Amino acid sequence: VEAAVCRIGLLGFGRVGQAVAALAASSNQLGDRGIDARVVTALVRDPGKPRSGARVPLGTSVRGFFDRPLDLAIEVMGGVDPAYACVRQALESGIPVVTANKSLMAAKGEELRAAAARAGVALAYDAAVLAGVPFIGALARRPFAGAPDRITGILNGTSHFLACALAAGRSFDDALAEAIERGYAEPDCSADVSGRDAAEKLTILAHLAGCRHLVPGDLPVFGIDAVHAADFDVARALGATIKPIASASFDPGNPGAWVGPALVDVNHPAASSRGVHNFVELREGDRAPVTFAGPGAGPDVTARTILDDVAEILAGAWRAPAIGGRSAARPADLRQPPAGAWYLRARHASFGVEDFAEHLAVHRVPALRLVSVGGAIAARTTPAPWHTVRAAADVLTSGGADVLLLPVMDATEANDERR
Amino acid sequence: VEAAVCRIGLLGFGRVGQAVAALAASSNQLGDRGIDARVVTALVRDPGKPRSGARVPLGTSVRGFFDRPLDLAIEVMGGVDPAYACVRQALESGIPVVTANKSLMAAKGEELRAAAARAGVALAYDAAVLAGVPFIGALARRPFAGAPDRITGILNGTSHFLACALAAGRSFDDALAEAIERGYAEPDCSADVSGRDAAEKLTILAHLAGCRHLVPGDLPVFGIDAVHAADFDVARALGATIKPIASASFDPGNPGAWVGPALVDVNHPAASSRGVHNFVELREGDRAPVTFAGPGAGPDVTARTILDDVAEILAGAWRAPAIGGRSAARPADLRQPPAGAWYLRARHASFGVEDFAEHLAVHRVPALRLVSVGGAIAARTTPAPWHTVRAAADVLTSGGADVLLLPVMDATEANDERR
Repeated sequence: VEAAVCRIGLLGFGRVGQAVAALAASSNQLGDRGIDARVVTALVRDPGKPRSGARVPLGTSVRGFFDRPLDLAIEVMGGVDPAYACVRQALESGIPVVTANKSLMAAKGEELRAAAARAGVALAYDAAVLAGVPFIGALARRPFAGAPDRITGILNGTSHFLACALAAGRSFDDALAEAIERGYAEPDCSADVSGRDAAEKLTILAHLAGCRHLVPGDLPVFGIDAVHAADFDVARALGATIKPIASASFDPGNPGAWVGPALVDVNHPAASSRGVHNFVELREGDRAPVTFAGPGAGPDVTARTILDDVAEILAGAWRAPAIGGRSAARPADLRQPPAGAWYLRARHASFGVEDFAEHLAVHRVPALRLVSVGGAIAARTTPAPWHTVRAAADVLTSGGADVLLLPVMDATEANDERR
Repeated sequence: VEAAVCRIGLLGFGRVGQAVAALAASSNQLGDRGIDARVVTALVRDPGKPRSGARVPLGTSVRGFFDRPLDLAIEVMGGVDPAYACVRQALESGIPVVTANKSLMAAKGEELRAAAARAGVALAYDAAVLAGVPFIGALARRPFAGAPDRITGILNGTSHFLACALAAGRSFDDALAEAIERGYAEPDCSADVSGRDAAEKLTILAHLAGCRHLVPGDLPVFGIDAVHAADFDVARALGATIKPIASASFDPGNPGAWVGPALVDVNHPAASSRGVHNFVELREGDRAPVTFAGPGAGPDVTARTILDDVAEILAGAWRAPAIGGRSAARPADLRQPPAGAWYLRARHASFGVEDFAEHLAVHRVPALRLVSVGGAIAARTTPAPWHTVRAAADVLTSGGADVLLLPVMDATEANDERR
């Protein structure tokens, strides 16, 4: 095959950028498809910083970056600024863009998709969510698959690793140190632990599903550090475990969202997934869900997905696809979780199991199952709206109890149609 | 949005074709993307047959079908003939084609892709494998994601349903009757039970992975009916279950394929999937696998995927993508399973556990674990090449034993990188 030259400019040249340059220079996969991908420049802040891998001409000026003829730009700076201005300038100059930047697409996705559509050039970001799993294109370009009324997933590998370690009885600090040592977490992993990273990814998926004006700040977000190690023992006593879940319902009858720990039935498919494994499940009506799963992060898998996006763009496949006209839900609808079953745990010196059961019954969230484990009392409740269970929890908190309130992911819900 | 009219001709008008016509006529999803899809004709054998749903002008002549101006053809006849001639004529007339026909794409995929490429028109077939899960595009258009060195999946819902029923202690006939009653299986379900349907789907995936000249007849195919109900008890004693697996390895060091029942460790993700749920797992090197899962069949999910393909084609996204230049493995390499661990079960009146252990050791497939359950002796062996374990099994068979030999899917292999 006579390969067509594609001159690529990298916006940013950190771990992912270096992996992209190395992979483009060394692999045969692009050449086999008739693509000669050449990274001709990389925009960096500090050209003196030690970097490994393929040698790429570095520049520090945005103007200099765009003075050079480019066929495609790959944005791997991370963060919203100055990435937004750079990507926008690329699109407005008629240069297609691939980005892996979830913060950018969550905060400015609508503006960038509009800029790409106006310029008639491609904007691809398959690596922004589940970096190693190609599925954004399916959501963005397929009207039926791309209009789920519920999206549920584990979207952050670091917090999933931490949850698994806590479930195995490890301490939070210990687990975090291992995650950093293994390279699953950056030394500054506040975005992972706090749920912000997962909230950005869920925002991108919600945009694709038609909730176009959502921003991460609209979502209720709770960190994995809200859960005590002892909660995993309580969960086990309830036939469940705890996972860092991101979920959004666009069902007009019961909209809502949640980013944070959730009680997951042991028979739920999410309960048996481990470590840095990520997944997204799309449901529509009472059909069996469609699930995409695989590695969620890492320079190598991210670079592969970025270069796959490049190949799709060069083949003409990514042409600023229209996002569905329908408006799935208003951002305001996603500020609290949808109605459902709840896990409510309280620690209170003068509180017995019977008191707890009565309290929940009086507040109209009767317990389906109650356990008392190591000084904590916990219930799995019947389905109820958020404000109802929230009120029951608030009374406990103001009475001096240490309270944890999480949504429940039922196994029956997930598995019914598969059986 | 001012919708562009797309005149669609249906090649075939059975359950899937009727579902396509009904969905195109009733849903808003296509209109939201600026597509006015109109089914203007359907080619049928018998126009007098009772049909439900949207009213579509029927015709019985292929010439008449192509005399009408069409923007797109959807082939839902099933089978290789006359579907092949019709699809080929459409492509050669410059009409893009969507097909859900796995038999056709398995037998004639190479010819049809070439015809589409010559004509410069699209040929999409996402519904041919895992009908409700959009992933063929990712394999076909993405050079990195699309070059796995191992593909493993449960590709047939009927045989999966039967395996689950057998595992629950039901009889084969009983389970089959229920599958037909529930609509999971057609009254003639020989293609499902025999493994032929799964072999056709695995062939399509192998083509996409670069093994372009494979035909289903090259693959070793065994039906789910090869397994006795008692084997599920034996499997349980070995910490495993039995699932209908389709798997191909393109690893030059250990190529091979298998379509049929396999022993699956209880901790393997496939062990916990149920019923008509299907999945495909792609592995490349020692990276964590990428998994696509969801409903594998049914007129409704198939129609949705077909119309999603239509939307992608009309958006310009499916333009006869090049299949990778690399040749992953020769079809001859896939005529036997790759080396691995084995499940070997024998029933023989005069054979004890010690005799069995010695027999396996002498034949260089020593048992890792041995159990004796209800008159059967079974082993899970150390890894060995197919011809070695085959020789050990053949000696048992010629000695009068009733023998079952299945590959083992290890949990460790599947989960290592996820932990």
